Parts: sequence; structure tokens; C-alpha cells
Amino acid sequence: MNVNKVMVLGADGYLGWPLMMHLAKKYGREVVGVDDLSRRKRVMDRGSDSGLSISSPHERVETFNRELEDKAVPIRMVIMDLRNTQQVDELLREEKPDVIVHFGEIPSAPYSMRSVYTAIENHDVNVNGTLNVLWAMKKHCPECHLIKLGTMGEYGTPGVTISEDYVKSINGEKVDPKAKMLFPRDAGSFYHQTKVHDTHNIRFACKIWGLRSTDIMQGVVYGTRTEETHLDERLKTRFDFDSEWGTAVNRFVVQAILGIPLTVYGEGGQTRGYLNIRDTMQCICRIIDHPPKAGEYRTINQFTQVKSINEIAGIVVEQAQKLGIAASIKRISNPRIEAERHRYPVQQHRLEDYGFKPSYKMEDVIKEMIEDLLPYKEILEAHKDSVMPVTTWK
Amino acid sequence: MNVNKVMVLGADGYLGWPLMMHLAKKYGREVVGVDDLSRRKRVMDRGSDSGLSISSPHERVETFNRELEDKAVPIRMVIMDLRNTQQVDELLREEKPDVIVHFGEIPSAPYSMRSVYTAIENHDVNVNGTLNVLWAMKKHCPECHLIKLGTMGEYGTPGVTISEDYVKSINGEKVDPKAKMLFPRDAGSFYHQTKVHDTHNIRFACKIWGLRSTDIMQGVVYGTRTEETHLDERLKTRFDFDSEWGTAVNRFVVQAILGIPLTVYGEGGQTRGYLNIRDTMQCICRIIDHPPKAGEYRTINQFTQVKSINEIAGIVVEQAQKLGIAASIKRISNPRIEAERHRYPVQQHRLEDYGFKPSYKMEDVIKEMIEDLLPYKEILEAHKDSVMPVTTWK
Repeated sequence: MNVNKVMVLGADGYLGWPLMMHLAKKYGREVVGVDDLSRRKRVMDRGSDSGLSISSPHERVETFNRELEDKAVPIRMVIMDLRNTQQVDELLREEKPDVIVHFGEIPSAPYSMRSVYTAIENHDVNVNGTLNVLWAMKKHCPECHLIKLGTMGEYGTPGVTISEDYVKSINGEKVDPKAKMLFPRDAGSFYHQTKVHDTHNIRFACKIWGLRSTDIMQGVVYGTRTEETHLDERLKTRFDFDSEWGTAVNRFVVQAILGIPLTVYGEGGQTRGYLNIRDTMQCICRIIDHPPKAGEYRTINQFTQVKSINEIAGIVVEQAQKLGIAASIKRISNPRIEAERHRYPVQQHRLEDYGFKPSYKMEDVIKEMIEDLLPYKEILEAHKDSVMPVTTWK
Repeated sequence: MNVNKVMVLGADGYLGWPLMMHLAKKYGREVVGVDDLSRRKRVMDRGSDSGLSISSPHERVETFNRELEDKAVPIRMVIMDLRNTQQVDELLREEKPDVIVHFGEIPSAPYSMRSVYTAIENHDVNVNGTLNVLWAMKKHCPECHLIKLGTMGEYGTPGVTISEDYVKSINGEKVDPKAKMLFPRDAGSFYHQTKVHDTHNIRFACKIWGLRSTDIMQGVVYGTRTEETHLDERLKTRFDFDSEWGTAVNRFVVQAILGIPLTVYGEGGQTRGYLNIRDTMQCICRIIDHPPKAGEYRTINQFTQVKSINEIAGIVVEQAQKLGIAASIKRISNPRIEAERHRYPVQQHRLEDYGFKPSYKMEDVIKEMIEDLLPYKEILEAHKDSVMPVTTWK
């Protein structure tokens, strides 16, 4: 399978933007991005902003294309809402990409739990947006490889080994491999549920239409730098730290910088998979280079380390101290409903099969994050209230 | 739990309408129905009509309330689209039912596979409609028992025993019962996928909000009569026989009456659970009388017999012959993608636990269906083209 053109959905986002640059500059591929810029809007709506100030889509693209110096096809950015069925259809009819990397979804658990309106908006954008992509792929580019961003959160914390392979036996009965039984899902927010729904819909589309897809169950991504984001001040990727759009790692880093205690939700035994942003870029490239067969749907559990929230907070405190910042930890009542102490055995082998090798230590990347954010202390200070949770699961 | 008021969503439909009457007349409960009348419209849009001519919602309700003779609270019918968040919220704020029986969804696999537009419409009506109900229940009647119509089709045909209980072991590891691991789903159309999505969303709502729900994985329902539908000519329930809205049983019965060969899709080994419409009424009543605890989500595999399509066709031919009608069977190429020969072990115990006892033989109910439909041969004849499939899964 010859990959010439890659389409990135959600190309203005935290992962989408650096991936655009990485694919164009390092791999010399033609890259077209699609985004409706809703993340910028939704973060501001929450009373916050990207901690690293970012350029407009136009300025980003122009700056990066100058960096490319005619060594690759200039990247392009299309502003489009994936809920628009006809526009998605026309886009794929025109572009016919070889690979679609689909990051174009709402990724916030608290946002989805805010109200019935945001829960439904989350379903519309994620589930219906992906349906539009699937139907348009079937019609215009059925050979295309869909790399879809799911989340490790789809599984919940069942206490038994989470596998990226199909179920081999259930209740003591052997399952025929041809049945391709999915490992059961138990998502912890309406956002996470939308990813479960996508998983079922995509797998079904592969089965009946012969589409091919790699569905990534991704751990929490952290970090502020990739090979390309620091080529020019205007190429940075966004950094969210408010309670709706920021991860716990990001919130901790900002709290350390601002001299606020790091707020751990509940007991802090919540354990998840993590990987840094440079490794994410590497993972996607490996997956592109190892496409599934026509009709194949496969799952990848994508993370490099498993850590509890207490461990993450500890690392942030330690790295802040190395930079002369005294940070402390404070437990607050958990706004979410989730297990705060649990086993978390997870199995993965595919990324290694495709030649992926983890790079950088978590400690070093977190130190780098603090260093990168220190010059933007004013922005962080101006939005520091947004770090505290407002939405509870009850 | 004292059940005074029951709300039936989808109250103008094949099952919703007879259930309204059954609950009011036999059980003396206050019953309020909700429907947007979209089924009537969608069947006509397909170029077909109900095989048994049915009255308007207004005439049905008036006629039935006269039958009640002041022995129970008159039934009411509210015309409303469940996609309307604000209206659903206001409805539950006003009514605060003790039980909601939720039949208010689009139930057609071929309709959902027709185009991207109908696939998304199916997701909006079913998934978002149910989200509206869940959020409004949480706000206005958190004690209410939600009886939701899912389908046995959620499971697909995995070849291992389908269980209504949580998974006990997976890949050789014992699952903690507290993890409440769902039996994996593998639905065969976008319609069936929406039911899988509902299942995940409802289970999650029970877990976090303490709602209670019985999620019925229902087999195929057949039959034209309940205790109440034949009290008056104007109280009949609808009967769909076109390729989008009718079941195979219904299509076979109509083909027999019209002297057209019964069209079996493919090999005819497709095996499913079945139950007659009177038993469905009984099941719902048993479930109402045995509510789950607060926060409990439970699954019921609801059917009384397991049959292959070849067996069903055989019974229709046999019963038609008893009424002097010569019928034959013709295999046609399968418009769907599905296993046409498979094991189908299914486990169920809950209905029996609640005192349910199957009534009537399938053979007798199918004979009754033919008898009930014979007087309407003209309607069937006028829409006979609609029996043949137009939508294929490819």
C-alpha cells in the first residue's frame, strides 16, 4: 500500500497540528488537515486559554510551509465541521486520501457530563461525525486506512487483563477467532461512551464494507515538544490546563508553576496508561507503515507506561523542585465517579510488532514541560481559576 | 415500589399501543403515551402501509376510553419527538411517571443501512432520544423504573452461549462480579448498533446516577391480537410487512395470502429468538411487578422459542395450507451480510424468575395472523411490491 496523501482530522488540535508537521517534514508526505476550530472556542467558553500561546491556523500553515523550503508538498488546512454530511462527502470525493488519521472529536469527560446539551453535542460530533467519515470512505476511498483515536478509557478498570486482541474464551467457552469478539467496554463518562460507540460502528463498517481501520486505545498524552513544534515560535501546539480540557498532568504542571498545591482527586490510586507526545508521533508513523488488510479492524493499546495519579503528582513535584520551584500536593473530593484504588493489568504487543521503541523518560519530559511553560506564567495566572473542577458526575 | 403511573414511549406503535390498553384495562394503571407518529410516515415513505388498517391516535384513544367505562383513569396520548430535549424535560417534570416503557425508537435494520442520512437519523432518534430521557429522569424522577427495548440482535451470533448475566470469566481470568462486565456486543446493522450504544449509555447512567433499568434484549415479536386489540375494530394495532418495517414472519404471512412464494434470504439457517405479542404484554407486566433496585441495571433476554428462518417459513406454509391456501418457498440472494448457518446457544432465566409463563403455540398464532389479515387482502395487494428488499448491506 503506497501512502502518498494523509488527511488529519482535528488538525488544529494538540496532537493533530504536530502530526501534520511531522508527516510532512520527516516523512515527506502530502498532508491535508481538517478542523472546525471548535477546541479554541470551547476552551475560551470554559474561561480558559491555551497555556502556550498559539498562532492562527493560517499563520501556522504559512510559517511551516516556509520551513519546508519546497522539500515537500505544502500542507493545507480545510476548515470544516465533520457533522456536515455533504461537506465530508465532497471532501473525500475530492481528496481521496490514502490514510485518514481521525483526531477530530470532542475529548473531554467533564464537558460531556456538564448537561444533557453537551452530552448530546458530544455524541453528535463524535459518533455522527465518524459515521459521515465512514460512509464517505465507503463511497470514495474504500482502500483508505482509517487510523482512529479511541481511548484506553473505553475499557474502564475491569480488574482483569485488558487485551488488544479479540476475546479467546468467555465464561469458560472457547470463542471462535472468526467471531472476532471485542473485549467488553465500560466507559466512565458520556465522552468515553462516544468512543465506545465509534469502536462498534467502525468495526461493523470494516466487516460489511471491507474498510480497514486501526482503532487506537490511547493512554494519556503529555509533553509540549516534538521535533517540529520548536522550529519556530509560531509552530507550538496548544496546551490546555483547565479542568475540562486539560489532563491531570497538565493541571499539575500549571499548579506547580503558579505555587498552588497539586489537586489530586480522591485517593489518587486511579491508574492509567501514559505516553509522551513525541512517542505518539512515532506510533502513528509506525501504524501508517504497517496498514491492516482490507476488511481488517484492529485495536492498539497505545501507551508506554502505567502510572497512578499519586505517582504522576510525585514526579511533577520532584521535577519542579529541580527547577527551584517548591510544590505540594492536596487531596480534594473527587468530582468524578471512578475506582480510586484498583488493579490495572493491560496487555499490548502490536506497537512493538511494528518496530515502535519508547523514547525519553517521563521525568525529563515533565521537566521540559515546566521549562516551556514558565515564560507563559502570565497566561496561566490569568486563567488559574479554570484549573479547579466545576462539573461533578452526580 | 408502588406503580401508579406508567409512561409508554412509542405508544402509537405495534407494541406500544396494545401495551397502553393492556396496562390500563387489565392492570388499572394510569397510562400516558408519547409518540411522534413517525412510524406511520416512514412506512408510507417506503411505499407501504399497515396491513391492518388502523385508526388515528385520537380515535383510538377515544374508543378505548369508552371501553374502560370509568373503571380506570382514561389513557392519554402526547404527540412529541424525543429528540426535543426541552420538551422531554418538561414532560417528565409534569408527569413524573413511576415506570417508563421505552419503545420510542426507529427499529429497522434496512432503513439504517439505506444511506448516511438514515443511519444518522437512526442514531439521533434512538441514542440522543434516550439520552434526553435519561437526563430528564435523573432530574425529575430518579426513582422511576426505565424498561428499555433493546434487541437480541445486539449480541450478533457469536457461537458461544449468550448470557443475560454479567461476564463471569474472560480469557481464563475470573471477573469480579462488582465489575459488572457486559456480555460483548456484535450488532449487524447501524440500527442494531444504536441499541448497543443505548445499552452502554443506560448502564452508565444507572451506575453514576443511581437510576434503575431493565434492558430487554427482545427476540422477534409476531402476532396480530392481544386481549384488548379485538374489543373494537378501531383498536387494532399496526401490522407492517414491507421489507424495511416488517419482520420476516410478517412478510411470509402476506406472501402466503397473496400467493407469492415466501422469500427466504440466502440459506435460511439464520436463527433467532421469537415470542408472540400476547407474551410480550405479559413479560412487560412481570417486569413492572419485579422492579430492579436503585442503581441496578439488568438485562433480560426476552423470547420464548428459538427458530431458524427455514423453520418459520415452514410453519407459515403449513398453517396457510390448513386454511386452504397453497404456499411455496423461494430462496433469494441475501441483501444482508450475516451468518446463514450458525450455532445459537442462548441463556435466560430472569423472566421465569419473575413468574412468566409462555402462552399459545407459534403455529396457532401464525394461523390467527393469516385469518386476521385475509379480510385486508386489498391493502396487502396494493402494497405488495414493498415486500421485496431494496437496500443491500454492501
